[in-house]
Amino acid sequence: MESYTTSSQSSPKLLFRQLFEKESSTYTYLLADSAHPDKPAVLIDPVDKTVDRDLNLVKDLGLKLIYAMNTHVHADHVTGTGLIKGKVPGVKSVISKASGSKADVFVEPGDKICFGNLFLEVRATPGHTVGCVTYVTGDGPDQPQPRMAFTGDALLIRGCGRTDFQGGSSQQLYKSVHSQIFTLPKETLLYPAHDYKGFTVTTVGEEILYNPRLTKDEETFKGIMENLNLPYPKMIDVAVPANMVCGLQDLPSNAS
Amino acid sequence: MESYTTSSQSSPKLLFRQLFEKESSTYTYLLADSAHPDKPAVLIDPVDKTVDRDLNLVKDLGLKLIYAMNTHVHADHVTGTGLIKGKVPGVKSVISKASGSKADVFVEPGDKICFGNLFLEVRATPGHTVGCVTYVTGDGPDQPQPRMAFTGDALLIRGCGRTDFQGGSSQQLYKSVHSQIFTLPKETLLYPAHDYKGFTVTTVGEEILYNPRLTKDEETFKGIMENLNLPYPKMIDVAVPANMVCGLQDLPSNAS
Repeated sequence: MESYTTSSQSSPKLLFRQLFEKESSTYTYLLADSAHPDKPAVLIDPVDKTVDRDLNLVKDLGLKLIYAMNTHVHADHVTGTGLIKGKVPGVKSVISKASGSKADVFVEPGDKICFGNLFLEVRATPGHTVGCVTYVTGDGPDQPQPRMAFTGDALLIRGCGRTDFQGGSSQQLYKSVHSQIFTLPKETLLYPAHDYKGFTVTTVGEEILYNPRLTKDEETFKGIMENLNLPYPKMIDVAVPANMVCGLQDLPSNAS
Repeated sequence: MESYTTSSQSSPKLLFRQLFEKESSTYTYLLADSAHPDKPAVLIDPVDKTVDRDLNLVKDLGLKLIYAMNTHVHADHVTGTGLIKGKVPGVKSVISKASGSKADVFVEPGDKICFGNLFLEVRATPGHTVGCVTYVTGDGPDQPQPRMAFTGDALLIRGCGRTDFQGGSSQQLYKSVHSQIFTLPKETLLYPAHDYKGFTVTTVGEEILYNPRLTKDEETFKGIMENLNLPYPKMIDVAVPANMVCGLQDLPSNAS
């Protein structure tokens, strides 16, 4: 039976891959609208060391990479964004305006990043750094169900990012997670930028119940964060200056 | 509006988690029917070192673990099956009859392993070891779509397990993958027991096109497998004897 539709486009269909970089325990995420003729794709939090792996996968899957995005200026690894721009002409780097970093596209809370008929919504979740954002899949009948949120270091599985450098603030992080992440539907899948114990995903419902830090009241949380006694991040002096220019934002003329 | 249904049970709904053990680069999989009142669950290829992590997750999610399953007798890590049996009374260990290993339940090709209203189908995929099986989610209207296959070491992402010990045979592995895995629908998600490059999943369609070994003809494949010159597996002399008794099949009387 035939039916009339108001659009010539088929419904968007999310192709999704989670990728892991072992040394810094970083997750990179590949999302694409595989029902769109161009199969437009985005990479969230690519790492310099795994750029070739990620781009080979993009090629194998027949995708067109349009954005290389960061949730924040990382202190523990160098972003792959600059390398990707050198290898795939036309890709645009994306980061929050609040990060103060260089990029092709600066996003602000409420912005939508579209790839095909899918999109990511930008939520400001400062606290680990001043410019941290969480990217959340769209809310709508043709968008992925359950929703998926890419939380960077704002919320980790049963944990959260540290708040003792790069404009971090435990008070701000507490507010960010409670107002911007824990208010999403409970079944929302949460994908962090890191995991150190081998977990790959959690949900809003789980973290509201079991996050050992963020289930506490704000004062207790601040006390926990002030007494972590973590070592100085070994990569910070290399990674942060590089990541402030998206890894390698201004490419030498022979780089492409 | 009310509607009449032929069953009092609600439709099964897969809860799925992929878990990683860094030292041996092993993936453990947790599957449960979260729509069933008991939330019955299975763990595929648990590792001894991460048993507490896995069981805490089972508890947090309110699941009832009923089976701890192995795809084969592993040579690179000790299975968590025996430890799990000691910690969670009533859990049954599962392995193929062809493995020659100890277990509570021996499965053969075509067997169904049910958890709630979901099930896994057993396919014989020998070649890495003589007793390797692949567990495939059910084929049916209420089973997960696309299907998911847990391939152990028979098929890895863009690779495959070695065939030079434990009754391995490159000829048999070639036949297993082509007849039992590549015949599944192309969109079937393939979840291996290991990945060493940070990939988490692939599909039948991708491996048919891009697996650097198994896309070759059988003779070329055999030549590749005979010339890998891999080192002797460092864990094999500890892991295989332990895993032949499911890690710790016969529990000391004070273990529970």
